[in-house]
Amino acid sequence: MSYNAPLKDMQFVLTELANLAEINALPGCEDATPDTVEAVLEENAKFCRDVIAPLNRVGDKDPSYWKDGTVTTTKGFREAFKAYAEAGWQGVQHPQDFGGQGLPKLVATPCMEMLHGANLSFALVALLSDGAIEALLTAGSDAQKARFLEPLVSGRWTGTMNLTEPQAGSDLAAVRTRAEPQGDGTYKLFGTKIYITYGDHDMTENIVHLVLARTPDAPPGVKGISLFIVPKFMINDDGSLGARNDVACVSIEHKLGIKASPTAVLQFGDNGGAVGTLVGEENRGLEYMFIMMNAARFGVGIQGVGLAEHAYQGAVAFAKDRVQSRDVAGSSGPVTIIHHPDVRRMLMSMRSQTEAARALAYVGAALSDLAHHHPDEATRTANLAIYEYLVPVIKGWATEMSEQVARDGVQVHGGMGFIEETGAAQHYRDAKILTIYEGTTAIQANDLVGRKTVRDGGAVAKALIAQIRDVERQLGEAQNADFVAIAQRLQEGSAALEQVVEYVVANIKTDVKAVFAGSVTYLKLAGIVLGGWQMARAALAAQKRLDAGEGDAAFYRAKIGTARFFADHILSQAPGLRTSIVDGAAGVLALEIEQF
Amino acid sequence: MSYNAPLKDMQFVLTELANLAEINALPGCEDATPDTVEAVLEENAKFCRDVIAPLNRVGDKDPSYWKDGTVTTTKGFREAFKAYAEAGWQGVQHPQDFGGQGLPKLVATPCMEMLHGANLSFALVALLSDGAIEALLTAGSDAQKARFLEPLVSGRWTGTMNLTEPQAGSDLAAVRTRAEPQGDGTYKLFGTKIYITYGDHDMTENIVHLVLARTPDAPPGVKGISLFIVPKFMINDDGSLGARNDVACVSIEHKLGIKASPTAVLQFGDNGGAVGTLVGEENRGLEYMFIMMNAARFGVGIQGVGLAEHAYQGAVAFAKDRVQSRDVAGSSGPVTIIHHPDVRRMLMSMRSQTEAARALAYVGAALSDLAHHHPDEATRTANLAIYEYLVPVIKGWATEMSEQVARDGVQVHGGMGFIEETGAAQHYRDAKILTIYEGTTAIQANDLVGRKTVRDGGAVAKALIAQIRDVERQLGEAQNADFVAIAQRLQEGSAALEQVVEYVVANIKTDVKAVFAGSVTYLKLAGIVLGGWQMARAALAAQKRLDAGEGDAAFYRAKIGTARFFADHILSQAPGLRTSIVDGAAGVLALEIEQF
Repeated sequence: MSYNAPLKDMQFVLTELANLAEINALPGCEDATPDTVEAVLEENAKFCRDVIAPLNRVGDKDPSYWKDGTVTTTKGFREAFKAYAEAGWQGVQHPQDFGGQGLPKLVATPCMEMLHGANLSFALVALLSDGAIEALLTAGSDAQKARFLEPLVSGRWTGTMNLTEPQAGSDLAAVRTRAEPQGDGTYKLFGTKIYITYGDHDMTENIVHLVLARTPDAPPGVKGISLFIVPKFMINDDGSLGARNDVACVSIEHKLGIKASPTAVLQFGDNGGAVGTLVGEENRGLEYMFIMMNAARFGVGIQGVGLAEHAYQGAVAFAKDRVQSRDVAGSSGPVTIIHHPDVRRMLMSMRSQTEAARALAYVGAALSDLAHHHPDEATRTANLAIYEYLVPVIKGWATEMSEQVARDGVQVHGGMGFIEETGAAQHYRDAKILTIYEGTTAIQANDLVGRKTVRDGGAVAKALIAQIRDVERQLGEAQNADFVAIAQRLQEGSAALEQVVEYVVANIKTDVKAVFAGSVTYLKLAGIVLGGWQMARAALAAQKRLDAGEGDAAFYRAKIGTARFFADHILSQAPGLRTSIVDGAAGVLALEIEQF
Repeated sequence: MSYNAPLKDMQFVLTELANLAEINALPGCEDATPDTVEAVLEENAKFCRDVIAPLNRVGDKDPSYWKDGTVTTTKGFREAFKAYAEAGWQGVQHPQDFGGQGLPKLVATPCMEMLHGANLSFALVALLSDGAIEALLTAGSDAQKARFLEPLVSGRWTGTMNLTEPQAGSDLAAVRTRAEPQGDGTYKLFGTKIYITYGDHDMTENIVHLVLARTPDAPPGVKGISLFIVPKFMINDDGSLGARNDVACVSIEHKLGIKASPTAVLQFGDNGGAVGTLVGEENRGLEYMFIMMNAARFGVGIQGVGLAEHAYQGAVAFAKDRVQSRDVAGSSGPVTIIHHPDVRRMLMSMRSQTEAARALAYVGAALSDLAHHHPDEATRTANLAIYEYLVPVIKGWATEMSEQVARDGVQVHGGMGFIEETGAAQHYRDAKILTIYEGTTAIQANDLVGRKTVRDGGAVAKALIAQIRDVERQLGEAQNADFVAIAQRLQEGSAALEQVVEYVVANIKTDVKAVFAGSVTYLKLAGIVLGGWQMARAALAAQKRLDAGEGDAAFYRAKIGTARFFADHILSQAPGLRTSIVDGAAGVLALEIEQF
C-alpha cells in the first residue's frame, strides 16, 4: 500500500484557508514564498513516498527490538533517518542560526503531516526532536543552545521527553526522579522513566534526554519539578562524544501498534548517577515542558490527520479495485465496491473528516505564526489565545477522528481488512496510541475546559463563534441546496457550541464534576463545529473559483460535495452532543463506585 | 484479567424483560423452570470463568498454527473443548432426540454470551457447530441426521460453514466450487474456500464441513447453489471413522485478532474430488445457508455483547485499582481513576450499551422461542416477523457497539491499554472481526432495508414503534427527573425511527441509491432506539421493585441510572442520525468515482 501526499488539498488549505500570503508577509517569514513552499512540499512528498512510506509495513512486521541493553531499530530506519537529516528535513521550522531552514510553522505542518502519514513509527523520532529543540530554544542557556541545538536541528542527534514514571502515569505531581546538585553546575539524576519514545535506538550517535526531576529542596507537587538535559553520551568541550552517561535502557514495550518505534523504560543513575544540567530555573520544569508539550500535542493532532489520510488512500485504492456484487441500482454483473452506497458513505466520512481536521490544524499553525511573528503585540496576543484554544481541540479531535477513520478503513476492506497483509489493520492498531500519548483526550479536554474556556470566561471561544457566524452569513447568500444545507448545520452547530460554552462557564464553580463529566464531549463538539466551519469556508472558496472559471473544477466540486457530507453526517451530531453535555451529567455520575 | 458472567443482570433481563415465565409455559419448553435456568446459568458461569476464560490471553499470545497441512490449536484448547462437550454445553439448545438438553433459545443465549465473553476465539468452534446442527435439523435427510447430529450435538465432532471463495467475498452469486454427481447419491467437490473458521483443528476426531457448491446443470447466480456435507474423515456404515476425505487445509490467516481461532483456506478435490452428500434439494443451498446464517448472525450479535461485557469488567477493575491525580472536586491526594468524571463517563457508556444490547438480544431470543413453540400459528408468524427484523439489528448494532466499548476499554487504561499485557488491546483487536464476518454491517443493513422493512411496507417496524409508544406512556406517568429525561429521549428516538422507516419505504423505488446510502445509519438508529426502549422497560421494572421494596435496591437504582445515561448519551444521537439518513444521501453520492 503506497502513500502519496495530498498536495492538491494541502496547497488549497494553505492558500485559501490558512492565508499563506499573509504569513509570508510577516517579518522572518519572507522565505515562505508560494514558489518555495510548493517546491518544499513537492520535494518532501517525494521523499516521504519513496524513502519513508515503504518502511511502514516493514517496521510493523519486524519491529525494533531490545537485546542486552540496546535497541536495534527496524532494518532501513537508520539509513532513512540519515537521508532525512542530510536533506535538512529535521530543520524545516527551526532557526537558521542553528542550521535550520527557518520556515514558518504553516509550512512545516504539511511536511509533518506527510512524514507522519507515510510512517507514524518513523516520524515519532523527528517529532520528539522537534519538542526538545523547542524547549531548548525557549529555556536553554546560551551554552546549552550552542552545544545541543545544531546536532538536533541537523538530525545528527535526536531528542526525547522523559515525563512518565511507573507510579505516576499522567499525574506529574507524582514525579519522583531525583536530581542532586554536584556543586559544579551539574546534577546527578536517579529514577525510572517509562513510555520514552525512541528512548534508545541506533539511528544516531547520540540521544538528548530531557528529563523531569526534583531537586532536594523542591516543594511537593507540580511546583517542585525541574527540567534537565541528560545526554546518552557525555559531550567533550570540543563537541566530540565522551563517555557513556549513567542512563540505561532496561526494556522496551510490546505494543498494540507503532511497533517500529521503541518505547523504552529508562533507568537513570544505577551506577552513581546520570549527569545532567538544569534547563532554565529550578522548579519551572513543568512550565518548560508545557512549551514542548504544546508543540508535541499539535504534532500528535497532525499525526491523526496524516494517519487518517493514509488509511483513506488505502481504502479508496481497495474500493476501486475490488469487484463484488451488483450495483444496487442494477448492473450487468458485479462492480467495484466503490459503487456500493455504504462503501461510498464510509469513504466520504473518512475523507471529509480528514480534510476538516487538516484545515483546522493548518489554520492553527498560521495562528501560531501570527502569534510569534506579527509586529503588533496585541495581534500576537490575540492570535496566541486562539491558537492555544485550538491546540487541545486539534490534538483531541483529530486523533479521535483518526481512530474512526482507521476503523472505517478496515471495514471498507471487509474480511481482507482483518488480515494483516493489507495494512489497514496496522492503521487501526497504530491509531489507538494517538488519543493516549501526549495527554489522553480527557487531559486535552481538561485543558480545554480549565485553561482555555473557564479562565477567560469563554471569551476566546465566543470570538471563534463570532467568526463562524460571519461564515454563516456568507453561506446564507448562496441559494443552491448544498450551501443551504451547510448553512443550516453550521448554524445548529455554532448554537450548540455557544450553549455549551455558556454552560461550562456558568457551572464550573457550582458543579465542577458535572462540567468535567461533559469535557470530552465538549472537545468533540468543538472539533466538529470548528471543522465544519473550515469545511464551510472551503466550500465558499471553491465556489468562488468555480464562478471565476479558475483552476481544477472537479477538485472544487469535490470540495463542495465533501463539505456537504461533513455537514449532514458529522456536524449534524452537534445538537445531540449538546444534550449529552448539558443534560448528561446526572447519568455519568448516577452510580456509586460500589455499584460498578 | 478475569471474566465473571454478569448473572444478576442476565437473570434480570430473562425474568423482567424477556418474560422467561411465558417461554417456560410454551409446549416443549417445560424444562426451562426458573430453578433449572438459574442452576444452568450458574454452572455455565463457573465453567466459563474457571476453564475457558483463562485460555483467552494464552490463545492470543500463542495462537493456533499451521504446519504441513494440519492445524495445532493453542495449548489447552483441546482439553477445554473436551470438558465443554462432556459437560453437555454444546447441546444446550439442541433436541433431546440427538442428545441435547432441548432448552429454549432464551436460555441458550446467556450461555452463549458467557462462552463468547470468556473467550471469543474458543467459542467460535461452538458457534459454528451450532450453525451446522441448525442446518441439518432443517434440511438434512433422516440418514444425514442419524449420522451427523449426535456427534455434533455431543461435541465429539465440530462443524464449519464454507461460503466464501477468493474471488467472491460476500458475493455468493460468484461461488465457483463444483459438485459432480457420482450416480451413487454422492458428489465429488472441487474448489477453494477461504475464511473457514476452525476449518481445521486438532480438538475433535472429525470435522463436518457444510459447503456451498454448484452442480453441473445449475443455473448461474445465487439460484444455482447447493449445500453439501463434506466430512474431514469419511464415515463407515457402523459410524466409525474411515479414510481421510480429499479436503486439505493449505494455510491459515495471520489476523488482527481472534488469533487462537484458526481461519483456514480449504482446498477441495485436489486428489480426485472431496466426497460429499447433498443437503435437501439441489439449488436450494442459499435458502438452507440462510437458516444457518440467521442463527449465526444472532450468535455474532451475542459475541458483541459478551466481548463488551468482558472489556467493561477489565476497565472497571483497572479504574478501581489505578491511583492517579486528585479528584477534580478536591481531595487530599491522588485517587483511583474511577473518581475522574471522564473515566466514569466511559465506564457508563460501556455499561449502558452492553446492557441495552443484552436486553434487546434476549428479548429477540424469546421472540424466536415464541415463533417456534407457540401453539397458535398466527402468534408464531407474528413473532417470527419481529424476530427476523431484529436479527440484523442485533448483529449489526451489538457488534458496532462492541467495537466502541472495546475502544473505550483501552482508553480507560491509558498508556497501559496500548501495552498488550493488560488484555484491553486484545479486545480492541478481537472486536474488529465482529462487524465483518457473517455479513458486514452493510450487509445486515441491506437485509434490514430490503427484506425486513421494504417488503412489508414497514409494518413490522411500525408495530415495534407502537410497542415503544406504550412504554413512553408508562414513563409519562412517572415524575422524577430520570424518568422524565428517559421519556423525552425515547419519544425523540421513536419519532426519528418512524420518520426514517417512512422515508425508506417511500423512496426505495424512486431513489434506491439514496435509501441504501442511509442503510447502515438506519441500522444504528434502530439499534439505539430499540436498545433505549429496552433500557426504559428495565428502568420501569426496576422502579416497580424499588416501590415494592423487593430485591437488591442498589442493583435497581443502578439500572435506572444506567438507563438515564443511555438516554442522554446514546439515544440523544437519534435525531442527528435521522438527519444523516433523510438529508444525507446527496453528500454520500456527491463525488464521481474519479474524484476520489
